[in-house]
Amino acid sequence: MNPYEYTQLHADRFKEQLKDLLRIPSVSTLPQHKPDVERAAAWLIDDMLRIGFHRAEAIPTAGHPIVYGEWLGAGPNAPTVLVYGHYDVQPAEMADGWDTDPFTPVERDGKIYARGAIDSKSNVMAQLKAAEALLATGGAPVNIKLLFEGEEESDSANLAAFVAAHRDRLQADVVVICDGSMADLQQPDMGYSLRGVVSLEVTVYGPQRDLHSGHFGGTVHNPIHALADIIAALHNPDGSVAVPGFYDDVLPLDADERAELAQALPYVEAEWRDVAAAPAQWGEPGYNLHERIGARPTLEVNGIAGGWAGEGFKTVLPAKAWAKISCRLVPNQTSQRTFERVRDYIQQIAPPTVRVDVQLVSIGEPLLIDRHHPMVEAAMRAYERTWGKRPHYVRAGGSVPVSVDLQRELGKPLVLMAFGYKGCGAHGPNEHVYLDLWYRGIETMLQFYAEISEPDR
Amino acid sequence: MNPYEYTQLHADRFKEQLKDLLRIPSVSTLPQHKPDVERAAAWLIDDMLRIGFHRAEAIPTAGHPIVYGEWLGAGPNAPTVLVYGHYDVQPAEMADGWDTDPFTPVERDGKIYARGAIDSKSNVMAQLKAAEALLATGGAPVNIKLLFEGEEESDSANLAAFVAAHRDRLQADVVVICDGSMADLQQPDMGYSLRGVVSLEVTVYGPQRDLHSGHFGGTVHNPIHALADIIAALHNPDGSVAVPGFYDDVLPLDADERAELAQALPYVEAEWRDVAAAPAQWGEPGYNLHERIGARPTLEVNGIAGGWAGEGFKTVLPAKAWAKISCRLVPNQTSQRTFERVRDYIQQIAPPTVRVDVQLVSIGEPLLIDRHHPMVEAAMRAYERTWGKRPHYVRAGGSVPVSVDLQRELGKPLVLMAFGYKGCGAHGPNEHVYLDLWYRGIETMLQFYAEISEPDR
Repeated sequence: MNPYEYTQLHADRFKEQLKDLLRIPSVSTLPQHKPDVERAAAWLIDDMLRIGFHRAEAIPTAGHPIVYGEWLGAGPNAPTVLVYGHYDVQPAEMADGWDTDPFTPVERDGKIYARGAIDSKSNVMAQLKAAEALLATGGAPVNIKLLFEGEEESDSANLAAFVAAHRDRLQADVVVICDGSMADLQQPDMGYSLRGVVSLEVTVYGPQRDLHSGHFGGTVHNPIHALADIIAALHNPDGSVAVPGFYDDVLPLDADERAELAQALPYVEAEWRDVAAAPAQWGEPGYNLHERIGARPTLEVNGIAGGWAGEGFKTVLPAKAWAKISCRLVPNQTSQRTFERVRDYIQQIAPPTVRVDVQLVSIGEPLLIDRHHPMVEAAMRAYERTWGKRPHYVRAGGSVPVSVDLQRELGKPLVLMAFGYKGCGAHGPNEHVYLDLWYRGIETMLQFYAEISEPDR
Repeated sequence: MNPYEYTQLHADRFKEQLKDLLRIPSVSTLPQHKPDVERAAAWLIDDMLRIGFHRAEAIPTAGHPIVYGEWLGAGPNAPTVLVYGHYDVQPAEMADGWDTDPFTPVERDGKIYARGAIDSKSNVMAQLKAAEALLATGGAPVNIKLLFEGEEESDSANLAAFVAAHRDRLQADVVVICDGSMADLQQPDMGYSLRGVVSLEVTVYGPQRDLHSGHFGGTVHNPIHALADIIAALHNPDGSVAVPGFYDDVLPLDADERAELAQALPYVEAEWRDVAAAPAQWGEPGYNLHERIGARPTLEVNGIAGGWAGEGFKTVLPAKAWAKISCRLVPNQTSQRTFERVRDYIQQIAPPTVRVDVQLVSIGEPLLIDRHHPMVEAAMRAYERTWGKRPHYVRAGGSVPVSVDLQRELGKPLVLMAFGYKGCGAHGPNEHVYLDLWYRGIETMLQFYAEISEPDR
């Protein structure tokens, strides 16, 4: 039996295993879910050992454990592949608009609905099940190292240090970053860049305590008003970011790259219409939708709060208001410099009637890969064999902060391979995965391993 | 024994009764507290009957019950006083910054801390205990009608209709509105105006669902940004409201009134420094602090929300963001007209990249009383006898929406008498009442009843 046949034969069991993993609410940003994150790590270790990995362990960190497993049976002359993925997920509550409980996977119309379905437990499971299919049918043609992080959705605080401390163990000929999505279900993408992300929190302090808006309204600068003024001043009316110097370090696109990116544009636009479905497009002038998402930096307020915004009405003039802001970065911007520019600008425009505090929350640098590297070419062929179409080059809008650390620490080529679809609601309610896409992901990994072990097949 | 002596003798029991009432979380805006509001009504009825009222009942409404009690033993030739108060309270949670549970009254340093302590259960209890002191010592020199509402903190939705339907029963020679605060503990105020309040909710809708800010950031107009732009456009940089026509209907102050209001200004300023303690004063140019609070209209955002603003970070581009806004109105503005102006302006500035919905939540008209009316003069003397100082004229910043209804429906003089202190945290955490102030309130009512029954004493 070959690994493709094995995968077909065990498709239902693979799917049930995916559901088992989705049932574990491994939310890395919420302290109360720490035991669940650990449970998810243990689940992965168990499966690695069951399918025949030589080594599998959960490595404790100051935060959540790193799951590492390896099978080196292909021998020292075969290529070695290090695959990165993450098993932690974003928070999710019914109140966010879920139709069913986010941690009770529901299968409907060829999809599984659950938090983490697309971001990124299906990717993690595609890697694990591709490895199983190979090991159960005579062994893999490459050495496989799987590195699954439990803190991608918080800030990957401990992975960079781990990678730096274990360069030898993690050494490989190619590093596959398996986390991300494509814009179309039938047309694969080959991402070659990821945006960085720097997040910060702005808090505006006004009166020393919440006040009655009747007794004090009109005499105290309402922190919500001051915060709104600050947020309003972060963008120009045309949609560009107004922070001085924000775009200074951005590597411009050349004509060749713009032409290649244009191939994927119709898919990016179609997906935007289906998923975002906002009243109108918006963004930085002079760039198309694909370029805005992947090749230009942005600044978004991800959350805002102040006063009483729940049920009923409370005529309060609040003591403070705050916003959580993140900037997506592109080469050659840096998190620290961008944070400083945003912070300095906010402090500069902050009025003297309030006190404004700006705190850095997390950083992550942007990534750019040589899109014509032989390892990327091998991945292109693997997709083409599975999907029947050569992938489009894309610049992804999301962030995998650790990819830059892996690139820097290991000094080896990176390839971005991911089997998600952008319309699957990552980070939002009713997140789901298409099972067809997931099975193709497993097959693509099998093809990739074949391509790099027999380049001339 | 005279009623003053009776009050002294029973001071401790009066205080324990106040605490009993404060233990009942009669939050009118939250449906889950409906039974508590009813319990508070029943508690008041019981006490009215116990002290000898001829009639006391909780009148059901479409919302919370109205408590009405009367003692008409002074006979048809004596003046009749109708007193309005409210027994419902604002929401309160430890998370808002309370040092102790808001519904477990704590006595410390001559104060009682609890939600409703100052707004307005101490006022309600001052009225009830003044009546008790008179009835227990030979009867009152006036007929007393007590009308306590259970919906003042929501929107007094049912009181106006009740008053219109029971004009005969509520008929009186003077109507005392007992809800509000003074700016200094030693210097009484005589309020003669109240601001109206109109509240509304603005919701900005963007993409059809919450989006991943990496996958879509930079291509969709973030509803939080659009809402911030709208809020920023509601005020001019100088602190005045930017809504076209907002000030058009405002009755200007004349020189006499400004001079009288200036007497209280140092107290208003001192209280602002103690309680608000914001980094700097703020507000409409050309008016002092007292005038801004009482004689000028304002627009405040009382709450804002959108995206993820809780613990941790969620890089979401939210489907919507919303704000709760209220305007405080002064004579001769109207709620409806002001709402329309704000709504029309917001819709006019709303960008085409989002959809903006503006809903009216509640209305309440401003009040102005002839500050030289004999009934107001009687109240001035009552305060002077108790405090040893003639009150300062003040225009209050707060709102008692029903006062306008009572003025219109009953056609009788209104007097604003209240025994709160502005520094007591109404609507905020650690709300409290000074017991000294509260006992003086009881005495002032006894003096007022004496003044209007024997004007020449």
